[in-house]
Amino acid sequence: MNMSEPLLQLLLANTNSYISGEEISRQLQISRTAVWKQINKLRNQGYEFDAIPRVGYRLKQKPDRLNTLMLLSQLKSSVMGQQIKLLESTPSTQIIAQQMAEQGAPEGTLVIAEEQTSGRGRMGRAFHSPSGKGIWMSLILKPQTSLQFTPQLTLLIAVALCRALQRLVPISIGIKWPNDLLVGTKKISGILLESSAEDERVRYCIAGIGISVNMDPEDYPEPLREVATSLKIESGSKVDRTAIITEFLAEFETLYALYNEQGFAPIRTLWEALSISLHRPITINTLQGKVIGIAEQLDELGALWITESATGERRKIFSGDVEFHR
Amino acid sequence: MNMSEPLLQLLLANTNSYISGEEISRQLQISRTAVWKQINKLRNQGYEFDAIPRVGYRLKQKPDRLNTLMLLSQLKSSVMGQQIKLLESTPSTQIIAQQMAEQGAPEGTLVIAEEQTSGRGRMGRAFHSPSGKGIWMSLILKPQTSLQFTPQLTLLIAVALCRALQRLVPISIGIKWPNDLLVGTKKISGILLESSAEDERVRYCIAGIGISVNMDPEDYPEPLREVATSLKIESGSKVDRTAIITEFLAEFETLYALYNEQGFAPIRTLWEALSISLHRPITINTLQGKVIGIAEQLDELGALWITESATGERRKIFSGDVEFHR
Repeated sequence: MNMSEPLLQLLLANTNSYISGEEISRQLQISRTAVWKQINKLRNQGYEFDAIPRVGYRLKQKPDRLNTLMLLSQLKSSVMGQQIKLLESTPSTQIIAQQMAEQGAPEGTLVIAEEQTSGRGRMGRAFHSPSGKGIWMSLILKPQTSLQFTPQLTLLIAVALCRALQRLVPISIGIKWPNDLLVGTKKISGILLESSAEDERVRYCIAGIGISVNMDPEDYPEPLREVATSLKIESGSKVDRTAIITEFLAEFETLYALYNEQGFAPIRTLWEALSISLHRPITINTLQGKVIGIAEQLDELGALWITESATGERRKIFSGDVEFHR
Repeated sequence: MNMSEPLLQLLLANTNSYISGEEISRQLQISRTAVWKQINKLRNQGYEFDAIPRVGYRLKQKPDRLNTLMLLSQLKSSVMGQQIKLLESTPSTQIIAQQMAEQGAPEGTLVIAEEQTSGRGRMGRAFHSPSGKGIWMSLILKPQTSLQFTPQLTLLIAVALCRALQRLVPISIGIKWPNDLLVGTKKISGILLESSAEDERVRYCIAGIGISVNMDPEDYPEPLREVATSLKIESGSKVDRTAIITEFLAEFETLYALYNEQGFAPIRTLWEALSISLHRPITINTLQGKVIGIAEQLDELGALWITESATGERRKIFSGDVEFHR
């Protein structure tokens, strides 16, 4: 039985006072554990509560919803985001965007979902995407460069997102190679660029972008709290998701044009300036094994140059996961 | 109305003598034009005729069909082709192989079709794939290298196919950059490598390979006759398709192992030795325009180094179509 609806009615009738878990349990005829589960379910849908131990719950905020007309009216880009598909809930925006790209959707088409039920992360990992509190979106790109260069695009997207966020939120955000955005040691955004190519020609890329915007600590399952954070947790206040999306699209459009005109060099400079993977001891887990050393720079294709600690040998790493040393 | 069946019965009853178009027309109560159309339809299905003007037709050969058990029993490779899906007719083996890869089919899985009704060529071009006379197949690969290197795989496949064919058929075959196989100036095989990647990691590649084996000149639509040929036309005799498939799989498996062990350098040497794109004036049509000059070698990623005729400038071309000068 779906208890969210009666619980919500009860809470909406008591927004000026706290209502105890015991009272809710009595009125709805469900156990205390069930009350706690339902509250968490509502939290995942974007509802916010004040909760005081031994006093009770008070509904503080209904979820804020994205709105296509609002997004389009605030758009500062001319290609990116000109077509927006906004979904309430979907397994993964990547899958929808891929289908749309196969059917000929133009470059800049954006798919956004309030909630992803099986969001895709790097290397087939699940990506935690609760409703209404983050930005889960996929942008269709049709780069005119050849396949060898798509890893540069991954780096470009990280740079654009980092710069857009820095402009809106007064916290320090860095890029972990190749494209994770971190505040301190905690992840605040993940990017996944899926490419489809014929020989050396790129048919399309789908840039999947997940941003933790307005999550509270309790929105994260226990094991994620250590490694993930949100813009709200770090800055102390809610951030407007519409502003983030439109700011990112504008910044990306500018850098993408720069890239198409001048190549990777200026993007590399920007990436290196925002990187937190350089000039410190790191371990990179690659398919061929661990590489331990200090990375100095990107090469011209976007690979990472690292000097191995043990041998002093300089190596180029094309693919891997970076771990920082404590 | 499908006239193939009664026509076939008539021809099968007269394999020792010629039967005139007029006689066929009379017996089947169809026009002479319809007779000619039906004969061509059967040709497309792999039937072969002796045709003497003003005398008539004689059925010479029923189509030879590929057979999974026969293929598996002749297999010389241990991974490539261990799983074979053989189809009578399909829009494109690439689509089937892609679906199988998405569902987790292992590396080396091979999809073959007697006929493709909308075979895919480079740059979305149609690929002429009549029934029973060629090899239309797609091989699933899961390379452990990162995305930047997949164009090398395209070149590797061309080398393996060229070497396998040379071993079976006494004609001279060359590779046009990046991966067309030509006899003289006519195309005998086309290769298309479709890649799916997440960031710099390759999820899978589908190598689509089309080989014109036993076509006669009349199997080609008029505009293709100038630019396409078959192993049978060039060598003067039919070639066993099963032998080609198993020979290619064995050669590819050997070179793929070499590549995984020693990198691209030995493949590059083999490619350069078989290439007909080097050391002669060519035009390359790229997305950025025409480049005219003489190509000297491949770079370490598989791009083509060309010295432009007009400027003497050395340039690296990552993607394009080569045209030879007359």
